[in-house]
Amino acid sequence: MRSSRTGGTLRSCRPPDDDRGQVPFPCCVEPFPGVRRGPCGPRSSHRLAERLRSQRLRPAAASLLTDPSGSPSSRAILWGGDRARSAHDSRAVPAARPRGGRLDRRLLVEGRRLPGPVAGLPGDVRAGLPAQPPEQPEPFSTVLADLERVVLPGVTHWQHPGFFGYFPANTSGPSVLGDLVSAGLGVQGMSWVTSPAATELEQHVMDWFADLLGLPASFRSTAAGGGVVQDSSSGANLVALLAALHRTSTGATVRHGVEPDRATVYVSAETHSSMEKAARIAGLGSESVRMVEVDGDLAMRPAALAARLERDVARGYTPVLVCATVGTTSTTAIDPLAELGPICQKYGVWLHVDAAYAGVSGIVPELRELQAGVEWADSYTTDAHKWLLTGFDASLFWVADRAALTGALSILPEYLRNAATDAGAVVDLRDWQIPLGRRFRALKLWFVLRWYGAEGLRAHIRSHVAMAQQLAAWAEADERFDVVAPTRSPSSACARAGPERWTPTSRP
Amino acid sequence: MRSSRTGGTLRSCRPPDDDRGQVPFPCCVEPFPGVRRGPCGPRSSHRLAERLRSQRLRPAAASLLTDPSGSPSSRAILWGGDRARSAHDSRAVPAARPRGGRLDRRLLVEGRRLPGPVAGLPGDVRAGLPAQPPEQPEPFSTVLADLERVVLPGVTHWQHPGFFGYFPANTSGPSVLGDLVSAGLGVQGMSWVTSPAATELEQHVMDWFADLLGLPASFRSTAAGGGVVQDSSSGANLVALLAALHRTSTGATVRHGVEPDRATVYVSAETHSSMEKAARIAGLGSESVRMVEVDGDLAMRPAALAARLERDVARGYTPVLVCATVGTTSTTAIDPLAELGPICQKYGVWLHVDAAYAGVSGIVPELRELQAGVEWADSYTTDAHKWLLTGFDASLFWVADRAALTGALSILPEYLRNAATDAGAVVDLRDWQIPLGRRFRALKLWFVLRWYGAEGLRAHIRSHVAMAQQLAAWAEADERFDVVAPTRSPSSACARAGPERWTPTSRP
Repeated sequence: MRSSRTGGTLRSCRPPDDDRGQVPFPCCVEPFPGVRRGPCGPRSSHRLAERLRSQRLRPAAASLLTDPSGSPSSRAILWGGDRARSAHDSRAVPAARPRGGRLDRRLLVEGRRLPGPVAGLPGDVRAGLPAQPPEQPEPFSTVLADLERVVLPGVTHWQHPGFFGYFPANTSGPSVLGDLVSAGLGVQGMSWVTSPAATELEQHVMDWFADLLGLPASFRSTAAGGGVVQDSSSGANLVALLAALHRTSTGATVRHGVEPDRATVYVSAETHSSMEKAARIAGLGSESVRMVEVDGDLAMRPAALAARLERDVARGYTPVLVCATVGTTSTTAIDPLAELGPICQKYGVWLHVDAAYAGVSGIVPELRELQAGVEWADSYTTDAHKWLLTGFDASLFWVADRAALTGALSILPEYLRNAATDAGAVVDLRDWQIPLGRRFRALKLWFVLRWYGAEGLRAHIRSHVAMAQQLAAWAEADERFDVVAPTRSPSSACARAGPERWTPTSRP
Repeated sequence: MRSSRTGGTLRSCRPPDDDRGQVPFPCCVEPFPGVRRGPCGPRSSHRLAERLRSQRLRPAAASLLTDPSGSPSSRAILWGGDRARSAHDSRAVPAARPRGGRLDRRLLVEGRRLPGPVAGLPGDVRAGLPAQPPEQPEPFSTVLADLERVVLPGVTHWQHPGFFGYFPANTSGPSVLGDLVSAGLGVQGMSWVTSPAATELEQHVMDWFADLLGLPASFRSTAAGGGVVQDSSSGANLVALLAALHRTSTGATVRHGVEPDRATVYVSAETHSSMEKAARIAGLGSESVRMVEVDGDLAMRPAALAARLERDVARGYTPVLVCATVGTTSTTAIDPLAELGPICQKYGVWLHVDAAYAGVSGIVPELRELQAGVEWADSYTTDAHKWLLTGFDASLFWVADRAALTGALSILPEYLRNAATDAGAVVDLRDWQIPLGRRFRALKLWFVLRWYGAEGLRAHIRSHVAMAQQLAAWAEADERFDVVAPTRSPSSACARAGPERWTPTSRP
């Protein structure tokens, strides 16, 4: 096992002394010698991909798509776009596994064809495991051998430097060690009293990140708000909606439930699906979700939002929440917070900012303009586990008025009562999330921040932006590519290659 | 660091070869030399506690309560009961931190007084951290030094062999290593395609556990149901409710939302609060929750449930879900599944079994009678992270009809589509849970099961049951104690010491 993901860009940010030897780079499994590589392996990648790889460059939100058929016609650098399929979809899948034979392994395994190992068909991993559970204890060497034999060939290697699927999800050595210490301590951070350091370190680190990202003063634990680590941005979007429902109903939802026929939630077609899923989970149903039009940059149109709000209010609906996105999933488009904010305030609707991917760019001062207007937000989420060298799960979530959040989520049975809580002297983070239990996730954030320092994290973000800009410049200069789906987020490049422009001679 | 938690009971179950040396026991931090011990430390514990400690016995659900005032009057072995406060509540907390001074450290720190280090007041951990985030990278030795200096003194040592707060939450070496491998691989298991092994190992391990616990055939992935690892039993209870709402409404909730004025949910006063929290999150509100009466064993009364259902149906309500508990949080009482099941079937209401704590006892055949009638369950959850040597989070959740669950939770935006999903050839576990992203949690379950073997896990459960029975026998034989709150779960002992029976001479 070796890793080179962060080696290229962050070397200069590491401490100069010998201590750095104590922190391993993130585990990254190279293709196993015994695993057959399909024709879609690195050798068949086009020149741009080779160039990227040879320079160990990695744009933050670009994917290299190679059609599983091996035909050169559909090779493209592609990420999102209007009708574009995501990079991990081949559109070439058989309806079922054929009887008595094995399909070409390429057909069903996407998202890890470049350049990770090519793994098997659905059921291959299970086929390598015994039908019955083990009765007797086994030596650990046997378990590790099976890990290599059965599990790893079926793993998509997200930490591989050549993995370009989805958003980046790069962990780091200090993050892995933070999770290791957390697993070893095995404490519960559900209440302050169940492990005071788990709560207090989390509060402190979240205040630090609010500073580093240039977020509003209201988000600090020392003001009326506060930050908390959620399990995912899906979870963050859900608790934002619950807090908004609580505020809009002045607390009535806790006892009486929601009013699905009246409550409305506003998104755009580019908003992440987790917001609609949240509306379903919260009992509103998908019909409560209004799809606001987007402009040519795929950003939510403020005038369209205002018109919808005005019409809905006139019809007797109760607007609850507007979800604005900083870095949409399809094209990393950015909704204009500064224009959406005053509209939300006018209608008294909760503004939630889902900055899951691009929010962490705020650590670089010159990129903060992307989130101009964030001071209008009632809640905000960004994922350290996407673009900030921290392992999943580490969704940073802030709220400007913590009372709305805890009003929606707190419940205090006898067995959770304790003197510190009763005295109101502490914050119990179980009241800030869906589950009761919580791991000590602040440790990995603290380790990452200490190890790289804010300067190191800024260098990391800047290096990815530079890569994306270089990629975009190459695509622009290469007649085989069109730049598609304009993006404001500086770390992504969306380009498309027309099939007609590819000839066999253009293959490497 | 050392640990002795599992050393006493499981030594004989470990493989005899040298391989076991590769697996560390769970980290367990002893009190730091520099940390002051208050008078509530080990020396002031009463004889029974001493006896337990000296023999390294640890009843699974017993807590040792020592009043923070230091008075002998309220020392007790106590766990739940009717009006009893939980062991981590002292009822003796000041309203605020006094100006200019420090309160006695004993006053605010509960749940870890025996025998862990005595930590500080609210704010002590934060006070040890700099106000500003670190700008420059730091050597890892500095981070580890701060971990010892600032964080660990504020940690409640759940893995300490003398920690008796809450339910047991004992992790193990193989579990920690499983989490380490998971953190190192850093893969996303949200869809099959994003890391096939993450989905398939989880399905396989869940099928194994369904076998091992004697759960119904319908819960197997090879039948109409299936298992999935949830982040917590709170999450499991919530998705069970969402699936029940989906089935009851024949899918209408997804589009139209819930009907809080009609839908009803049935619990007892002993049901975990996460079920009421789930009803709030799902938009039903707490008024939808019906509290069914319990009997003298604190178990839900079937006749009372039937009467409530009949009355509610007659009034036009729509019963959605009954939550039965195997091992309640207060006293580990057990609701009679075999009697509740037919009633639920008669009224077409979803039976969810919250066996978070005691469910794993089913791995021991002679204890399965506690869950007799589990074949009536539509869904079931038990926590491997409580009593099965696995670190949080590892809530095992099964459903008999997976279509109801995925019907409630699946959502398929363009960027999550892929050929394998489109072909219907795979299971995407993101559709079985609230968040989109998911860690590779099956690894730690697999490691634990392989390392201990089913036989080792059975020995572990049996040893805890034996301890609890011995504790109960001691309490029974000791005139200073009354056995309170009858429990059917064999691993807990609830006893109370009357203040009048304690004299200074009874102190050790």
